[in-house]
Amino acid sequence: MIRRLCIVGVGLIGGSLARALRQAGAVQEVVGSSRQQENLARAVELGVIDRYDTDPAQAVQGADMVVVAVPLGSMEKVLRALAPGIARDAVVTDAGSAKGSVIKAVRSAFGKLPDNVVPGHPIAGTEKSGVEASFAELFQRRRVILTPTPCNSRPAVDRVRSMWELTGAEVVEMDADHHDEILAATSHLPHVLAYALVDALARMEDRVEIFRYAAGGFRDFTRIASSDPVMWHDICLANREAILNVLARFQDDLDKLTAAIRNDNGAFIQEVFSRAKDARDRFAKIEDGSLPAE
Amino acid sequence: MIRRLCIVGVGLIGGSLARALRQAGAVQEVVGSSRQQENLARAVELGVIDRYDTDPAQAVQGADMVVVAVPLGSMEKVLRALAPGIARDAVVTDAGSAKGSVIKAVRSAFGKLPDNVVPGHPIAGTEKSGVEASFAELFQRRRVILTPTPCNSRPAVDRVRSMWELTGAEVVEMDADHHDEILAATSHLPHVLAYALVDALARMEDRVEIFRYAAGGFRDFTRIASSDPVMWHDICLANREAILNVLARFQDDLDKLTAAIRNDNGAFIQEVFSRAKDARDRFAKIEDGSLPAE
Repeated sequence: MIRRLCIVGVGLIGGSLARALRQAGAVQEVVGSSRQQENLARAVELGVIDRYDTDPAQAVQGADMVVVAVPLGSMEKVLRALAPGIARDAVVTDAGSAKGSVIKAVRSAFGKLPDNVVPGHPIAGTEKSGVEASFAELFQRRRVILTPTPCNSRPAVDRVRSMWELTGAEVVEMDADHHDEILAATSHLPHVLAYALVDALARMEDRVEIFRYAAGGFRDFTRIASSDPVMWHDICLANREAILNVLARFQDDLDKLTAAIRNDNGAFIQEVFSRAKDARDRFAKIEDGSLPAE
Repeated sequence: MIRRLCIVGVGLIGGSLARALRQAGAVQEVVGSSRQQENLARAVELGVIDRYDTDPAQAVQGADMVVVAVPLGSMEKVLRALAPGIARDAVVTDAGSAKGSVIKAVRSAFGKLPDNVVPGHPIAGTEKSGVEASFAELFQRRRVILTPTPCNSRPAVDRVRSMWELTGAEVVEMDADHHDEILAATSHLPHVLAYALVDALARMEDRVEIFRYAAGGFRDFTRIASSDPVMWHDICLANREAILNVLARFQDDLDKLTAAIRNDNGAFIQEVFSRAKDARDRFAKIEDGSLPAE
């Protein structure tokens, strides 16, 4: 049971976490903090938080669990601001999509890697953002990756793990670098491609007609381009190296596929498309539970 | 009222069209044709068609409406095969995703552009294929683009138009080249990118983990990579020039975005992402009817 949960950044992720823990009866009091008072007032209205303080150091006072769910670009500043208020028995975690940069921010804000600050990342979200979009079921059957530092105490990691498990998520632990490589491939690269595609089309002369004749496949493919640009700008810079690596591999592959189309190399095209379909079908089956994970 | 509808290629599109017209009470008899007898027998079982003939020239006998819904790579061969059987009062249309290549196939198969062969393309589909995946509502509120040739008679075009309107679709007419440019941008390019991305990830060393930690955004983004590889192979070659054009523009834009990530050019990244989000949100609103089309 969490006595007092402090959510710094009450948006889709922070709000959904508060809702899920309340629904599980796992938290007594939820305190919110963010720069926007209006957003916090709305979160109280929605019953997501009990009260708030726009000063993070004040908001975390007496909390035994602090979750920082702000864009990566604000992470260091927010951690620095809340550090003085953290209780001795508190555990602090975050929800940032790139972990190497968070660990750097922690070290910089605290002057060390504290034993009770545990980096984490719930692999969940929608293209929507803000507390209005939050819902208690967001983390059900989703994965949360914790990337503990060598300085973390086991009890601190376990308290974060227990919290996420109460939301219905499956918690795994891995190295921060490994996390960042995997997320660059499965999440960051697709977002970059979706943004780049929609922007390319939006700048074409016949953009009105282009979007008029787009269908369901396009809607799904571009859904992630409706995600928060600030958040994704921050992710691109925070996980730059890993993203540049997968981008280079992707561009190389796309060049080869383009050459095959140009040169009428049907066998190559067919090979790429078939292999991709097999992998995607496999992924979909594992995801819906009709095939066990390898 | 269609007296006898002949569907050549009883898959997702052909099957759904037959179902929709039956549901609308707009057709008396549906005859199917395809290379696979097993598939045709299943279509009869499902009530999609009344009977079938694996010989297209036989199947089209006495039909007043013939719809060719086969992969683009088979178009010319199938048209050539059915040409001798077409009744004098019949109208023939197709469902190919690239129109320039269909018009070429028509000219080649018939030795001219007949007044009663009207090229068309329903902008509808799912990542699934085959008659099992067909359903009557597939075309509701979707668009069908007809690209009449200068040789088409107005009554022939109008009969095809009426047929699609009975399925709940909105029918528009445009030039084949224009169709091919628009579809290259909104449909063919996204499919190429989705296939290329999934294949790139599937060939990475840690592919098992990569797919394990993929979430909802990835599932939506890659859904179209589950589409039929043969059909999409054919589209890439049939609409090669238009696809190469948009691919070049996209790759150029992606290079710029990559450079911005590499050079820490946050302003550029933010600009691209914001413009894309605006365009995507606008598209979604027009699509769900909450914003009128421009």
